[in-house]
Amino acid sequence: MSTKSNVLLIGSGGVGTMAAYNLEAGGLAAITSVLRSNHEAVTQNGFTITSLDHGFVKGWKPSRIVNSIPNVAKEGLRSFDFIVVTTKNIADIHPTVAEIIAPAVTPGYTTIMLLQNGLNIEKPIQAAFPMNPVLSGVSLIGATETQPGHILHDDRDRLIVGAFENHNIPKETNLAAAKRFVEIYNASGKVQCTHDENVGFVRWRKLIYNACYNPVCAITGMDTARMRIYRSPIEDVIRPLMWEVWNIAKAAGHQLPEDIVQKMIDCDPDDTYFKPSMQQDIEKGNYIEFENLVGEPLREAERLGVPAPQLKIVYGMCKILQLRVMEQKGVVKLPPKDDPTRPILEISQGSSVPS
Amino acid sequence: MSTKSNVLLIGSGGVGTMAAYNLEAGGLAAITSVLRSNHEAVTQNGFTITSLDHGFVKGWKPSRIVNSIPNVAKEGLRSFDFIVVTTKNIADIHPTVAEIIAPAVTPGYTTIMLLQNGLNIEKPIQAAFPMNPVLSGVSLIGATETQPGHILHDDRDRLIVGAFENHNIPKETNLAAAKRFVEIYNASGKVQCTHDENVGFVRWRKLIYNACYNPVCAITGMDTARMRIYRSPIEDVIRPLMWEVWNIAKAAGHQLPEDIVQKMIDCDPDDTYFKPSMQQDIEKGNYIEFENLVGEPLREAERLGVPAPQLKIVYGMCKILQLRVMEQKGVVKLPPKDDPTRPILEISQGSSVPS
Repeated sequence: MSTKSNVLLIGSGGVGTMAAYNLEAGGLAAITSVLRSNHEAVTQNGFTITSLDHGFVKGWKPSRIVNSIPNVAKEGLRSFDFIVVTTKNIADIHPTVAEIIAPAVTPGYTTIMLLQNGLNIEKPIQAAFPMNPVLSGVSLIGATETQPGHILHDDRDRLIVGAFENHNIPKETNLAAAKRFVEIYNASGKVQCTHDENVGFVRWRKLIYNACYNPVCAITGMDTARMRIYRSPIEDVIRPLMWEVWNIAKAAGHQLPEDIVQKMIDCDPDDTYFKPSMQQDIEKGNYIEFENLVGEPLREAERLGVPAPQLKIVYGMCKILQLRVMEQKGVVKLPPKDDPTRPILEISQGSSVPS
Repeated sequence: MSTKSNVLLIGSGGVGTMAAYNLEAGGLAAITSVLRSNHEAVTQNGFTITSLDHGFVKGWKPSRIVNSIPNVAKEGLRSFDFIVVTTKNIADIHPTVAEIIAPAVTPGYTTIMLLQNGLNIEKPIQAAFPMNPVLSGVSLIGATETQPGHILHDDRDRLIVGAFENHNIPKETNLAAAKRFVEIYNASGKVQCTHDENVGFVRWRKLIYNACYNPVCAITGMDTARMRIYRSPIEDVIRPLMWEVWNIAKAAGHQLPEDIVQKMIDCDPDDTYFKPSMQQDIEKGNYIEFENLVGEPLREAERLGVPAPQLKIVYGMCKILQLRVMEQKGVVKLPPKDDPTRPILEISQGSSVPS
């Protein structure tokens, strides 16, 4: 049996591809990549990567390329040691992450690494696979797929890894899974992957940005640079919202430093007019991953009795945006115009997020 | 001297044209209309009006048509008894209403009728013309200019008139101005114009709709019918916001009935997918009149110590939308992309709204 970890990567956009490349560069992992939109391009020409950490790479392919999630049991495959998930987390739309990865998970064996943003993303995964370690990956990388198979990686790959608490399995098993992942990820010597047991702290810290800039930029159509240049969007909307999230984090037991608010306000460069992912998704007509970025922090606030009236209205507006996307995609249909006899719709929305 | 009131109408879209037509139909007023975008069409062919109150009218022209605000003193004109203003009220952009009407106002004589929405719209007018009566007109009409000179009037003209309080002039002068306006407006026998001294109550009641549906529809791009059909937009966003406004009104001394919230939620028909004016303006790339609809109620809340965190964030988002319109119109210019040496802009925004 190989000493290389057998890794399945799901979500091969910018972040996912750089994770795959880095893992194989370290020599301690063999990657199976599930490719969809770029499957043909990569099968033919491999990836073209321009990377701050790894330099210029042409024609690279992961060990194995597939175009759908492997069914390990049915296909008699070797179990995956790790499944790395770098897709968006659209908790309110099926199929959910748990549903997507199910055929590839070996119960009680495979470690599931969620390289995704937001709060409580592990909950539906642990509910579906109670005996598997689930890891938190919080990434500060900047990487984009500029065209199918072409990756621009322009901000250093810094990854913080920790195991989500799981009372069904021994603490050491969880910890060992996290440490092994850090080992195989750092093996390339090119990136900065650290282990941090305080998963909650790490995730709440990033939520100061993600629960505020992401939805407000998506709702108002203004990027973070313009908000800083014009100033009033920061002072009227972003800063008060960030303090609400800061206070929820505190009540949830995570005392973030006070200067984190200003740091998060300033963390994007001004000169690129950066649009957070949720704003990019709305512009492309994609679903937005607002349930874990905004909905879950809000539900924590409600559970803990912390006032969060502004986060609540931002959450409500995100739901409106998502309904618009559903309508654009034809998932919901409205009665025709000027038909007074038309019935009022009953809309059934799937949701895997506990509310 | 004629017994007809000499009336200047500024803003000849749907609402303004129906006011002008109705006033001349009553025989107690002669109208001078300031036409801009439809000046040529109306000069040549008159207005074509399809009206619920007045029937089908072809080729109608007001007594006098001009293409700019008359300068009464310079041109040696007869003073206007009334100036009826039906333009949008964009308080944060110059020229303001006070600046626009100035050449036509005879100080201490002309009554200024503001047939416009929002709170404290009289303040800058009274500051500019302290000795003139200023009237409040709250209209429930539905009227649209479908093409230059063509008006579709599809919801009854119901107008509530009252004088704004003004300690510089005798109460009777103010009252007489309001009553005379009601007289000339009702003279057609086709509309329902009522006098209501409680101007604040009438305006706050309409703000339950205007401070909530208008900005949220503009911000989220969803009309009021969809919000009711989908339900969550109402329960998550609109209803809590309406109660904030209701509570501000109460603290300001206007105890609105409690069922006004549900009535305002339901007041548009579902089958036309009606977009409030602020949403229409954003879609057309026009400035939005958010300062008097949202900003002033919010400033009242702050003055009175009433919590209004959700209205505050909606206001902040409206400012973001207005900045986007300013950018589209070239009023503000941002530094170019990818230029790290560029200076940070100082944006000077005119505002006639006391903050």
